[in-house]
Amino acid sequence: MNSLLEVIKKVDVVPYPHESEYKSFINQLYTLISHDESFALGYLLEPVVNELRNFPETFIVDDSTRKVKFHPSLNTKELREDALHAVGQKWKQDEPFETLKGWRDEKYTIYDQNKKPYFNLERSMCPLLGVVMYGVHINGYVKDEHGNYSLWIPRRAKDKPTYPGMLDNTVGGGLGFPYGPLETVYKECYEEAGLEVSYLKEKLFSCGMISYFYQLKPYDFQSELGLVQPEVEYIYDIEMDSETVPHPVDNESEDFRLMPIEEVKVRLFNGEFKDNCGAVIVDFMIRHSLLTPELEPDYLEINNRLHRFLPFPTKSY
Amino acid sequence: MNSLLEVIKKVDVVPYPHESEYKSFINQLYTLISHDESFALGYLLEPVVNELRNFPETFIVDDSTRKVKFHPSLNTKELREDALHAVGQKWKQDEPFETLKGWRDEKYTIYDQNKKPYFNLERSMCPLLGVVMYGVHINGYVKDEHGNYSLWIPRRAKDKPTYPGMLDNTVGGGLGFPYGPLETVYKECYEEAGLEVSYLKEKLFSCGMISYFYQLKPYDFQSELGLVQPEVEYIYDIEMDSETVPHPVDNESEDFRLMPIEEVKVRLFNGEFKDNCGAVIVDFMIRHSLLTPELEPDYLEINNRLHRFLPFPTKSY
Repeated sequence: MNSLLEVIKKVDVVPYPHESEYKSFINQLYTLISHDESFALGYLLEPVVNELRNFPETFIVDDSTRKVKFHPSLNTKELREDALHAVGQKWKQDEPFETLKGWRDEKYTIYDQNKKPYFNLERSMCPLLGVVMYGVHINGYVKDEHGNYSLWIPRRAKDKPTYPGMLDNTVGGGLGFPYGPLETVYKECYEEAGLEVSYLKEKLFSCGMISYFYQLKPYDFQSELGLVQPEVEYIYDIEMDSETVPHPVDNESEDFRLMPIEEVKVRLFNGEFKDNCGAVIVDFMIRHSLLTPELEPDYLEINNRLHRFLPFPTKSY
Repeated sequence: MNSLLEVIKKVDVVPYPHESEYKSFINQLYTLISHDESFALGYLLEPVVNELRNFPETFIVDDSTRKVKFHPSLNTKELREDALHAVGQKWKQDEPFETLKGWRDEKYTIYDQNKKPYFNLERSMCPLLGVVMYGVHINGYVKDEHGNYSLWIPRRAKDKPTYPGMLDNTVGGGLGFPYGPLETVYKECYEEAGLEVSYLKEKLFSCGMISYFYQLKPYDFQSELGLVQPEVEYIYDIEMDSETVPHPVDNESEDFRLMPIEEVKVRLFNGEFKDNCGAVIVDFMIRHSLLTPELEPDYLEINNRLHRFLPFPTKSY
């Protein structure tokens, strides 16, 4: 029996502390810690640490403990943001890493151990600092009179910088400051699928979240580095009527197809979906009784990995 | 804003490795490990370890490492079961712990690191050895024409040895050998609620699992000890029609009431539900958009804790 665990292991890549590979994995990284050393924010790769050495008034690198600390003087959110803005201006100009080509002038919020905002940061800088990133993913589905499910699946545009030409969830997007999950859903559902708020208010269901500890493969997401990336995705379902056809307004996707769940499963096994979209679909299948303990030999491990407790503080909600 | 995190913390009690309380918590326990020292099975309290010292051909206690190892000679499932049967016979007779009063002649299966059965063990002995236990919980619900949810909630019989008189999930039960999750659901739904397999085949949905690391409060579940208990519960929903009224066949519950979700929530906050049944209802509310990120200040932590990766091997599905 085939297991969908392989699809989950594509996004939940970082070894767990009880696994034998953990120590050698962690030992090649640096840990980013807060100005008062009270909590960790993310894992850093050496090439990034070497760039951070150019900003000694912002980052203090300790090679013996492999920790990079925010300078103790950066004891307010505003001071940290000013310091990071200066780093960002330099990086935007010099582009020491390919991922910075995705510069968007959009900010993500990073949280402290009390679940309060610690600073806002340009989106394309987040993967370099290894901090937790948040998004929303929406499954638009149709259930026919026999109980058979189909999902509305778009294909990503071939000229999209990240994962071009791959299959995607109906709608998805990052949680840019100052928008909350539901506001982001409304915005992205219109832009990516032409679905209006009035339609969503009737049919949208909030269904939980998934979290996992990703490592970008080199040249994914314009990264030449293999960045380590903790992620949280809020999950929503829309049970759509058979008359409504989603259509891209912003041209980020090429087309939408209503794909029977059996075909979705085959394409999942074939690796045709963007990695985290595959994980979202496995979660959908679990919640809708399409993947059951009797059908999936790694049912428990899949469920656990889809809700990984990240070792860094996260948003309160 | 009230948070349902308190309801989850009642079942997910054991501190996490990154928390400051973890070390002192772990230091008061012993770890049960396999005959070949390749994996851990559970945490043991000192009074239990002291009883295990009476069986030196079955358990080797090392006080310096605080580990209790199965004797290396117990290198097959059958040998381990024979040895544990002898311990069980002595304990059934002497009842060194109150929890053994719940002796059922029903076996649970404990798994090795390859997700294969390591041994079967009398149910009432499992909490003493701290091994992972499995169950099924079923939410029977009605959704009216306005989209309002109600849950069928029974009250546990006042003479039940465990959690007498508390509110419960519609149906629940342990995964006794040799039954799988779905077989257990069919059996328990008939015994506890009079629901026939033919009815379930139309209306039952498998919806995932929850896992958490419980510590019994002294005198819960007939335990005088505060046993540490890792648990996995397979979750199912039944969307019931308004004509079908569940009724106990085995008299384990007193009555069933169709309770509007707002009332369920109030009673959850009041602590009227058996601890793990409260967690099952929070999971239900999350999946059905009744608890959303905007309504719940601890949304992410609740989702993570409801799917805790246990530090011991679990069943494959």
